[in-house]
Amino acid sequence: MRAVDIITRKRDGWELSREEIAFLIKGFTGGDIPDYQVSAWAMTVFFNGMTAEETAALTESMLRSGSTIDLSGITGPFVDKHSTGGVGDKTSLILAPLVAALGIKDPMMSGRALGHTGGTLDKLESIPGYRTSLSVEEFREFIGRDGFAMTGQTREIVPADRLLYALRDVTGTVESIPLITASILSKKAAEGTEGLVLDVKYGTGAFMKEAGLAEALAQSLVDTGTALGLKVRALLTDMNEPLGYKVGNFLEIEECLDCLEGINLADDLMEITLELAARMVVLGGKAADAAAGRKLCEGALKSGKPRELFLQNVRSQGGDPDKLLEMRGNYRSPVAAEINAAQDGYISRIDALKVGQASVLLGVGRNRSEDEVCPTAGVEFHSRRGDKVKAGEKIMSVWARDEAGLKAALPGLTEAISYSDTAPEARQLILKDIS
Amino acid sequence: MRAVDIITRKRDGWELSREEIAFLIKGFTGGDIPDYQVSAWAMTVFFNGMTAEETAALTESMLRSGSTIDLSGITGPFVDKHSTGGVGDKTSLILAPLVAALGIKDPMMSGRALGHTGGTLDKLESIPGYRTSLSVEEFREFIGRDGFAMTGQTREIVPADRLLYALRDVTGTVESIPLITASILSKKAAEGTEGLVLDVKYGTGAFMKEAGLAEALAQSLVDTGTALGLKVRALLTDMNEPLGYKVGNFLEIEECLDCLEGINLADDLMEITLELAARMVVLGGKAADAAAGRKLCEGALKSGKPRELFLQNVRSQGGDPDKLLEMRGNYRSPVAAEINAAQDGYISRIDALKVGQASVLLGVGRNRSEDEVCPTAGVEFHSRRGDKVKAGEKIMSVWARDEAGLKAALPGLTEAISYSDTAPEARQLILKDIS
Repeated sequence: MRAVDIITRKRDGWELSREEIAFLIKGFTGGDIPDYQVSAWAMTVFFNGMTAEETAALTESMLRSGSTIDLSGITGPFVDKHSTGGVGDKTSLILAPLVAALGIKDPMMSGRALGHTGGTLDKLESIPGYRTSLSVEEFREFIGRDGFAMTGQTREIVPADRLLYALRDVTGTVESIPLITASILSKKAAEGTEGLVLDVKYGTGAFMKEAGLAEALAQSLVDTGTALGLKVRALLTDMNEPLGYKVGNFLEIEECLDCLEGINLADDLMEITLELAARMVVLGGKAADAAAGRKLCEGALKSGKPRELFLQNVRSQGGDPDKLLEMRGNYRSPVAAEINAAQDGYISRIDALKVGQASVLLGVGRNRSEDEVCPTAGVEFHSRRGDKVKAGEKIMSVWARDEAGLKAALPGLTEAISYSDTAPEARQLILKDIS
Repeated sequence: MRAVDIITRKRDGWELSREEIAFLIKGFTGGDIPDYQVSAWAMTVFFNGMTAEETAALTESMLRSGSTIDLSGITGPFVDKHSTGGVGDKTSLILAPLVAALGIKDPMMSGRALGHTGGTLDKLESIPGYRTSLSVEEFREFIGRDGFAMTGQTREIVPADRLLYALRDVTGTVESIPLITASILSKKAAEGTEGLVLDVKYGTGAFMKEAGLAEALAQSLVDTGTALGLKVRALLTDMNEPLGYKVGNFLEIEECLDCLEGINLADDLMEITLELAARMVVLGGKAADAAAGRKLCEGALKSGKPRELFLQNVRSQGGDPDKLLEMRGNYRSPVAAEINAAQDGYISRIDALKVGQASVLLGVGRNRSEDEVCPTAGVEFHSRRGDKVKAGEKIMSVWARDEAGLKAALPGLTEAISYSDTAPEARQLILKDIS
């Protein structure tokens, strides 16, 4: 078998065999197949796509490139959630303790902020002392005791994805549905989960701008995950507006605490969180359908148990829950500003992409994976889409890492807001439920 | 400017600017742009093609990656020929002295055999002492004195092509018309020629099997060459049968001498050679049209001057003409065999690809560029397509480098011959004349 023949066959529209795909991924990971052949192959996949069988074979080959987490000995069911990324997307931090309160274990491996989208690990690390590099033993221990644990991907987990993603990032081969599918699912399968609920976002603040492409990705994820023996469901959700009232690392931790306590509830954040949680409950076998699952989640939230589990997780992973609660509302960067309404009227839109890009400038996110983020930077929305405002009224509070960042970010944040004379139509937050 | 953006733009169907293409080629040649980006870009070109402007810009960027031959001070006109490669294709060795006899200078830079196609340099080097690595000074001197010179591409000439071709060869990006066009024309433009006649072959023994694809390549070569300021014409010629009576390195030198002396003339070889030469004479301004050019060529051939110039070139480049003439007919590998007709009837076909592939096994060609070729191996056809034969009659004489090669090659040579009860239709040797 030669890599050049595999590239040529895929280029000419042939379906690759499991053996060919395994040969390529194994050779690439082991250093026997050079990156210039793999990047050319990735481009053939961009142009010609992959069949369901090829995508499943690719995912399995990537999964087998490293070690997987063994959750045996811990009582399941194990159900996780994955989001394709957005602005203000903090649902993981609410979901995990919520479903844990209902007896579902969530072995969550998350990523970091990149570009305009936030990252769960960066948010958690804004809690002083919180460690996101757990050993496998700690990961297993915390899941068993607290019902969930939050960790980053170790170097041993799916090394093929780390190598392939780095190559795709610089060769114009990121935007390929089968390659994205294999990247997401190989990591999720490696963490040992049995069920997986996917939040596939579309809109300006999402990776996939068009709903049609996002739906194709969602379907590919569901089909491939199912072929791999996972229980998978996906929701196609709107990411045209930032999710919730806060965008920022510590700011989003605060909003999660609010949600777990039933205060300052943002309707979009709660709706998407509960619908995702409901499906996790269904996949975990605790409810017959999503409606029943949602009722269980609403009840669990009111019990206070999820909040307890959240704080317990903070303690397990090295943070101080009491200190965290003291910091609420005052752990902010001193470099601050306000953005006020430019006119009377309704806010017809707050563009998620513009807010996400401005957030990077504030220090919330990063453009290069080696950059540091600022825990105390971010944006709080006092009014959102659909709210009636008066000229000069405060719409956003803004905190930046430094003056330069603040200055750079403010125009984008101001431009992100659109106004109208009449109230905008209600948004459909969840476009499709794919299974 | 970033390579990844150039890749992505081409991937998404945008036309690249001259600056973008120059950035890519310069960065690649200089080692600043890694091969994994260039291979991904080449694959986007395979899928999305290039406009005429892009192809011209690519050719120019490649041309500028190294030095060019300066022919100033030598009296022109300078006209060269390039063939896309075939089996038994020895026209260059007849053409160059033929047009030189008519006052046209041919600054010929040639390549080596690779795969089933032969290489002019390997044929010339079968003449003991013949050197194909001329210095620029020698190249100029011999062209000025003998009317032509035959050399290999130096490392200084179009280094971008050497690097890019090596990368394309292992990344499934060879079969791209704009990339082939730029590769051929950048080298031809670098040798200092003003006019160029292209022999674009189609058929089993050609690089392009389909006439339609070969025609598209021919048109791309003509258009791009013209855009670069060259005078270009192309003939689309049939390469389904080996060209001439002999395939092999020294064997083909012999056949060229025969042609220059008017003996043992193979009709296909003479027809294609004279039609190509006629157009070189036209591009060199020595005849008004191809018909007049052909008449001049036929007359020149009979004058004996081309034979003299051929032998003079052998002397200039280190060979011994007298010794060459002595070796004629007896410089053969001792490992020999015959292939006889399997039945009575007409030979309806001798497949060029099968003969070419068997020739590699005999030692005529090579599969890897580092392999050595054998000067005395090859095939002589005693009967060819259209000839009537009797069972057992000798059709081919075969000489091999060694017994293993002979044994490996004979089945393919036997299979290359097809028989029929009635005479096959006449072939159209020249399908199109493209200008």
